[in-house]
Amino acid sequence: MLPMNALPTLHERLPRLTEHLEQWIIESKKQCQHGKVASYIPELAKGNAKALGIHFIDAHGNETSAGDTDTVFTLQSISKVFTLLLALMDNGEELVFNKVGMEPTGDSFNSMLKLELVQPGIPFNPLINAGAIAISSLIHGSSQSDKLERVLRFFRMLTGNENLQYNETVFESELQSADLNRSMAYFLKDNGVLEQSVDDVLDIYFHHCSIDATCKDLARMGLTLANNGYDPIQQKQLIPKRYVQIAKSFMVTCGMYNASGQFAIQVGLPAKSGVSGGILTLIPGTIGIGVIGPALNSKGNSIAGVNLLEKLSQHYDLSMF
Amino acid sequence: MLPMNALPTLHERLPRLTEHLEQWIIESKKQCQHGKVASYIPELAKGNAKALGIHFIDAHGNETSAGDTDTVFTLQSISKVFTLLLALMDNGEELVFNKVGMEPTGDSFNSMLKLELVQPGIPFNPLINAGAIAISSLIHGSSQSDKLERVLRFFRMLTGNENLQYNETVFESELQSADLNRSMAYFLKDNGVLEQSVDDVLDIYFHHCSIDATCKDLARMGLTLANNGYDPIQQKQLIPKRYVQIAKSFMVTCGMYNASGQFAIQVGLPAKSGVSGGILTLIPGTIGIGVIGPALNSKGNSIAGVNLLEKLSQHYDLSMF
Amino acid sequence: MLPMNALPTLHERLPRLTEHLEQWIIESKKQCQHGKVASYIPELAKGNAKALGIHFIDAHGNETSAGDTDTVFTLQSISKVFTLLLALMDNGEELVFNKVGMEPTGDSFNSMLKLELVQPGIPFNPLINAGAIAISSLIHGSSQSDKLERVLRFFRMLTGNENLQYNETVFESELQSADLNRSMAYFLKDNGVLEQSVDDVLDIYFHHCSIDATCKDLARMGLTLANNGYDPIQQKQLIPKRYVQIAKSFMVTCGMYNASGQFAIQVGLPAKSGVSGGILTLIPGTIGIGVIGPALNSKGNSIAGVNLLEKLSQHYDLSMF
Amino acid sequence: MLPMNALPTLHERLPRLTEHLEQWIIESKKQCQHGKVASYIPELAKGNAKALGIHFIDAHGNETSAGDTDTVFTLQSISKVFTLLLALMDNGEELVFNKVGMEPTGDSFNSMLKLELVQPGIPFNPLINAGAIAISSLIHGSSQSDKLERVLRFFRMLTGNENLQYNETVFESELQSADLNRSMAYFLKDNGVLEQSVDDVLDIYFHHCSIDATCKDLARMGLTLANNGYDPIQQKQLIPKRYVQIAKSFMVTCGMYNASGQFAIQVGLPAKSGVSGGILTLIPGTIGIGVIGPALNSKGNSIAGVNLLEKLSQHYDLSMF
Repeated sequence: MLPMNALPTLHERLPRLTEHLEQWIIESKKQCQHGKVASYIPELAKGNAKALGIHFIDAHGNETSAGDTDTVFTLQSISKVFTLLLALMDNGEELVFNKVGMEPTGDSFNSMLKLELVQPGIPFNPLINAGAIAISSLIHGSSQSDKLERVLRFFRMLTGNENLQYNETVFESELQSADLNRSMAYFLKDNGVLEQSVDDVLDIYFHHCSIDATCKDLARMGLTLANNGYDPIQQKQLIPKRYVQIAKSFMVTCGMYNASGQFAIQVGLPAKSGVSGGILTLIPGTIGIGVIGPALNSKGNSIAGVNLLEKLSQHYDLSMF
Repeated sequence: MLPMNALPTLHERLPRLTEHLEQWIIESKKQCQHGKVASYIPELAKGNAKALGIHFIDAHGNETSAGDTDTVFTLQSISKVFTLLLALMDNGEELVFNKVGMEPTGDSFNSMLKLELVQPGIPFNPLINAGAIAISSLIHGSSQSDKLERVLRFFRMLTGNENLQYNETVFESELQSADLNRSMAYFLKDNGVLEQSVDDVLDIYFHHCSIDATCKDLARMGLTLANNGYDPIQQKQLIPKRYVQIAKSFMVTCGMYNASGQFAIQVGLPAKSGVSGGILTLIPGTIGIGVIGPALNSKGNSIAGVNLLEKLSQHYDLSMF
Repeated sequence: MLPMNALPTLHERLPRLTEHLEQWIIESKKQCQHGKVASYIPELAKGNAKALGIHFIDAHGNETSAGDTDTVFTLQSISKVFTLLLALMDNGEELVFNKVGMEPTGDSFNSMLKLELVQPGIPFNPLINAGAIAISSLIHGSSQSDKLERVLRFFRMLTGNENLQYNETVFESELQSADLNRSMAYFLKDNGVLEQSVDDVLDIYFHHCSIDATCKDLARMGLTLANNGYDPIQQKQLIPKRYVQIAKSFMVTCGMYNASGQFAIQVGLPAKSGVSGGILTLIPGTIGIGVIGPALNSKGNSIAGVNLLEKLSQHYDLSMF
Repeated sequence: MLPMNALPTLHERLPRLTEHLEQWIIESKKQCQHGKVASYIPELAKGNAKALGIHFIDAHGNETSAGDTDTVFTLQSISKVFTLLLALMDNGEELVFNKVGMEPTGDSFNSMLKLELVQPGIPFNPLINAGAIAISSLIHGSSQSDKLERVLRFFRMLTGNENLQYNETVFESELQSADLNRSMAYFLKDNGVLEQSVDDVLDIYFHHCSIDATCKDLARMGLTLANNGYDPIQQKQLIPKRYVQIAKSFMVTCGMYNASGQFAIQVGLPAKSGVSGGILTLIPGTIGIGVIGPALNSKGNSIAGVNLLEKLSQHYDLSMF
């Protein structure tokens, strides 16, 4: 790895970014009309279908943003990458991969088919709902509230944002609409994947999905992933490199639901999306990127956000492949 | 229909039954060694793997029994036929068939595949677990305890056995091992099939599965089904004929789990089995039959019980087909 | 069994049939507008969507018909019942049930899911396409043309109609649109179910589906099934009783595609339908019935034909259950 | 991209490679005993279960090899990457992605489930069998033999090996055991994916799977992929960069059958394996790598080959993630 001060700056790596962004945001926003805000809980349905924002941060702390970057949204599935990391730090690889597999499923993120059809009935990967529920059961803590605190502290550390909070309104709303996830959790319990009570596990799961954040927070977390777990701002290794490698592999193969293959081809960067319309992505080694655009395509990814990232990747030739 | 006193007696319809039974019981018991007692809850695992008993009753009240007919066992899935009947009496056909379908599934009785794969995601029929859970939600009652009382009263009426009870030990044991059924119930709730709380519905469901009975009780209930809802002993129409017809259709197409087609070919009588090893069957118009044999074959049916019914059906040419 | 001359006549069993039929045909024909003629091959698409006809025959040779009974149509899936019977006569039960199972599938008649998902990968029953293809491979004959002749002769014998022919135009048309059935056949070959060449087997299969017939022919074949293989007109046992019992069991559990459970509840008679709009059914012991109505419902059964049989069964209380 | 002469050499990028390889080959060979040579065709079953070889080539033409690199084997699924590239060059992205999707399936490479379950019934990606068959139908040519010639010429150009040949013995053997692939092809035809005759398409498909090659040929093709379609030896752009990017994305998400996710985590390089035991992989920008080890693990990948690549990737920190 290059020494930090030798890393290219945002403006070296993405020259004339600001002026391009202005145009691209206008163009990508047109996609919003073809998408739909998630509506399975009332709190999510309040998302602004026309919003689109993006934030960049480099290893030197330079930042650029464009569009509706004030939007506050809940992390939803984006949080799954980080609870995986925390679970790996708490338990090590071997134990974690006894509970979840490493493969994309080809099915919807909330499908239960493979839990029944494929032995030994563990979730195929930690980024589908069943897998993230299993991961939630692995977070250490002396008590339920200690676990919740550790999770929140981890996200605060990674965003450098001490104001980060669980959005209890969204949490309650999720809990009210939790029948399918609860079904999954009981199926996992029957398959021997969960050792704790379903209620406790879902309490962790819905809490980490309900953390309020902004594009800037996503970009900041992305920066640490881009630098293999080293946070160049705080100048600290926050997560072991090996675990970040695992997380980025999953972001490429499973990060964008069952449109991950298409995203690999069209954008070619590790990324994770959430149903609130957020996307966390990164340019390996240099830049963290956060996107918000609540209108979703049929696969559950921000329709304008994906479009914007395609423009960015193609213009600057960012694909890893 | 023939007047009751014109109906053939047990000994007219099945001449020399007693002496045949003696031999057949010996032969069929040999099958027990190839089967296994259900073990998913400790209470069921206590079943006697070597037991086999059968009881017959005709419209005149004549009874014959052979083998281990003292065995007390819980109704388990056999109860599903009768909660279906009670739900039909409480709600009518239209409402019931909005919640469950009419088709065999070809899958295991506890499979959830079709709930996810086939729109509109209602259980395929009322005799698989998902369907019976949906049916449990349709039982009327002013309160949860009133519902439980109505169910028990219905079974007491049909067996003419006022001592019939819920086996609370088995009930508690079922509830402890309920993860898969709970998963199913939450899936049904997510699909809009259940309107009540999962806990309340499963409370009904596991209670009716946990009613203690004997072969004699099964035979007695079978007699009323054989007479299209009319109980020739009490001389009362207990269930409308149309609903009994529906129940018997389901017993033929789905009554023996996913070995129902084979049972139709080998035995050819409407029947319903349970994992405790019971089988309720009947000779249309004349005779009710109850069987107990806790050792199960791979499909979950009493291995010796099915074998015994094959001998009986073939010897007396009983197949409906 | 009663001696033939003691069997009730058509007019005893179904009093005032002719006058009821007149009205019922008018009413059931209204359903035609909600159905669609099969269109996967041009020859079938020529079927008259507005036609509805029914024919009855009893053991004494009395016949009644109503509606468009002149319509000539191809047997399609109705033929599967009889090739099963011929295969049983040629090979015995044991060999046949090594190649096909005895269970309804809950899936569409042309689904391949269970061939991949359920070991040992044999068709679940002989009335779905995969099963009927497997059965076609079991017909004996010294040569391919001998097999075709034997099949045709069997149908001529059962209908008493020496003019029965393969419709070569439909056969050719089927062969042109055979990709899915061919896919199934190769899957079966891979699973070790077929021993002969796929081309030869499909040649038999599409030929027996392409036999031209009328309602009267169906009724005549139904009469022999109703009498357990004994043809009361020719006064000969044409098929062993045991095989007819097997066939009738399948007709109840799988005869009306994946609406067989519903048909058992609404009509309650053994039946087999075809995509040309024919339905063969019977009143056990007494009467054979043939129906034609090319407009199909979403499950592939004659929409007006099913409606007409419901009226008939309910009015005369014909359900076996 | 760096100018070619600035690219690191094999020995700069992988210092002390030769001495490490000697040890690693010995260690990885121990895995062979836990694997099995593919046996579905006799020709493949002849593979040496104990063999393991690896070959490297850099942009300057430096080569290193170790182990059993003389082994000649057929490309099998490795060829699918290159027929995809040829199809993209012949037809462009839009047409190709009308016929195949971009997503991993989570199912076995020869599964047909998703063709039936997921609309519109096109193969999920071009590297599973169904997808590669669809791709084979897109190769241009004035005649069948012209197509076969174009394919062979493409492989000769990419390997720089004018002696590359179709192995007609393997081809014939494949064709004899082709029932499942033939089933898939007819299913695709029924779904409207294939426009040509199944026989012609499978002729192309089995031919390109049957090209004889060595590790050296794989490494040479890998080198051109590593350099985004530019062959540094011949100093020519052989394939447009965009198409190579697409191919490498698929190699990461789907290249190692349904163990691709695991390979991404354990090795982290674009790769494609074949049932003959070959693996083609590459270090982006610099080095092409070919591996042969006929003993396969349960997912169909060379058991010792994967083990060797893990050691290599971990020692030199080669993961892209």
